[in-house]
Amino acid sequence: MASPGAETKKPGNHNDFVQLCNPHVAAMKEDVLYHFSLSTSTHDFPTMFGDVKFVCVGGSPSRMKAFIKYVAVELGLDHPGAEYPDICEGTDRYAMFKVGPVLSVSHGMGIPSIAIMLHELIKLLYHARCSGVTLIRIGTSGGIGVEPGSVVITRQAVDGCFKEEFEQIVLGKRVVRNTHLDDWLVQELVRCSADLGEFPTVVGNTMCTLDFYEGQGRLDGALCSYAEKDKQEYLRAAYEAGIRNIEMESSVFAAMCNACGLRAAVVCVTLLNRLEGDQISSPHEVLVEYQQRPQRLVGHFIKKCLAAA
Amino acid sequence: MASPGAETKKPGNHNDFVQLCNPHVAAMKEDVLYHFSLSTSTHDFPTMFGDVKFVCVGGSPSRMKAFIKYVAVELGLDHPGAEYPDICEGTDRYAMFKVGPVLSVSHGMGIPSIAIMLHELIKLLYHARCSGVTLIRIGTSGGIGVEPGSVVITRQAVDGCFKEEFEQIVLGKRVVRNTHLDDWLVQELVRCSADLGEFPTVVGNTMCTLDFYEGQGRLDGALCSYAEKDKQEYLRAAYEAGIRNIEMESSVFAAMCNACGLRAAVVCVTLLNRLEGDQISSPHEVLVEYQQRPQRLVGHFIKKCLAAA
Repeated sequence: MASPGAETKKPGNHNDFVQLCNPHVAAMKEDVLYHFSLSTSTHDFPTMFGDVKFVCVGGSPSRMKAFIKYVAVELGLDHPGAEYPDICEGTDRYAMFKVGPVLSVSHGMGIPSIAIMLHELIKLLYHARCSGVTLIRIGTSGGIGVEPGSVVITRQAVDGCFKEEFEQIVLGKRVVRNTHLDDWLVQELVRCSADLGEFPTVVGNTMCTLDFYEGQGRLDGALCSYAEKDKQEYLRAAYEAGIRNIEMESSVFAAMCNACGLRAAVVCVTLLNRLEGDQISSPHEVLVEYQQRPQRLVGHFIKKCLAAA
Repeated sequence: MASPGAETKKPGNHNDFVQLCNPHVAAMKEDVLYHFSLSTSTHDFPTMFGDVKFVCVGGSPSRMKAFIKYVAVELGLDHPGAEYPDICEGTDRYAMFKVGPVLSVSHGMGIPSIAIMLHELIKLLYHARCSGVTLIRIGTSGGIGVEPGSVVITRQAVDGCFKEEFEQIVLGKRVVRNTHLDDWLVQELVRCSADLGEFPTVVGNTMCTLDFYEGQGRLDGALCSYAEKDKQEYLRAAYEAGIRNIEMESSVFAAMCNACGLRAAVVCVTLLNRLEGDQISSPHEVLVEYQQRPQRLVGHFIKKCLAAA
């Protein structure tokens, strides 16, 4: 299977149509995107989505709704009484919103949940004949050795053993994919953060785990068979390996975007410094402001791209 | 870590208080269940949840809300104007509803999403000093060699290589847990299905995967590098291994319930026969009726247990 390294892509050559890594789909008469409650036989994808250039994805449906309203205002596309209905209103698996060239989609929590969404999203972009699309995950994470509220732009996603790859089981066999993210996009986002000057932003590796408690070395889950000392050793080794935050979706996001040749970035705010503790106990309003930081950064990036186009 | 085999538990000895497999939690002054938006310092868990005996979990929030209404009517606990507010209204990560001794909780899609929920649920039951609790997952799945609409009661959860275990990475090391489900509960649920006589029910192994498309041998994802023949070989080998359905949560559900000594069952309806195809394209009303089948079976089981108590 083609799996182009994202690091070789140049800024200029992303006007290509979205491609699938699956020869079977072109031969299908109808394609039901079951978890979106959309189908090529009941919805006109080119008309609904053909102008999409930026897709932003994040865990929570309400956060992705807030993002589309924010972007609409930022891009001057909002107007009094404007509503942003959920395009996936036929299901409560995911929520999807659109304004102008921006699509905002929720993906739930964890690799399997975002993977289902990405399979159907990439097919949606393909059926809609979209071109030059950039995907950005805007999320939350636990920081390692960075001040809470810092935004981490991911260079590479790594697994719980710090390996720079995404492994999955296909027909009972192990398949390994590349989790490097687009270098040009990382640098553009760093410049955007400097433009804003509102919050600390770092570039680092992101550890992507299958569990939030034991899988991230927390001591406060229902199960835990290790001590504070073991946890600190693990997290400090992660820091030494260049890891600055931990979340649960980046590896499959990077791997699938790479495989389909889509430019992609992961921009997550850190809600706490895991070297200091496990529980997310900051006041609600502090956490809400933290969660707006990736939105502000990516909103600024989109505005800048559109102004330069 | 203690991981009692669920198969050794007797019907009579489940009046025990819910236990954690983590010595650290007892020493915590406050426990924030972040993804439920509940905390021991702001909510009185024993008063709110102390009487819970049955916890039913499923992917979709709206389905779990429909279930609590259904159970309320079945148990004679419904009354005109009764409302079932979302106990986790402070977050959109999960939804939780309660009537009498029954708690109904959504878990999203995939192992990581249900694992976060289960860590916080088991701690909730522990803080509430619940005893004699039974957990049942009521879900949807793809069938293998069974008629669509059949209900599968899981004997054992297996992974994508048909191994009867759940593997996870803890502090960078591989940990393997037991995925056997409670034999007594399987037999009780089979008897309940015979009582109802409404739909075909089988007992079999359930394959739990990390991906819905390539991970389940589908040909209709954004990525696919194999042929129909390879897929058929894989699914037929799964059938030979005693697997009757495929879903995405049972292995960690079985493993965590086993580790904490909780009686547990997995009851999923099959929405299609994967030997016949990949797409879920049955009419909406047919799928809705299928999704009610596990609810009817488990509602009957709970009613029967309460009548015998």
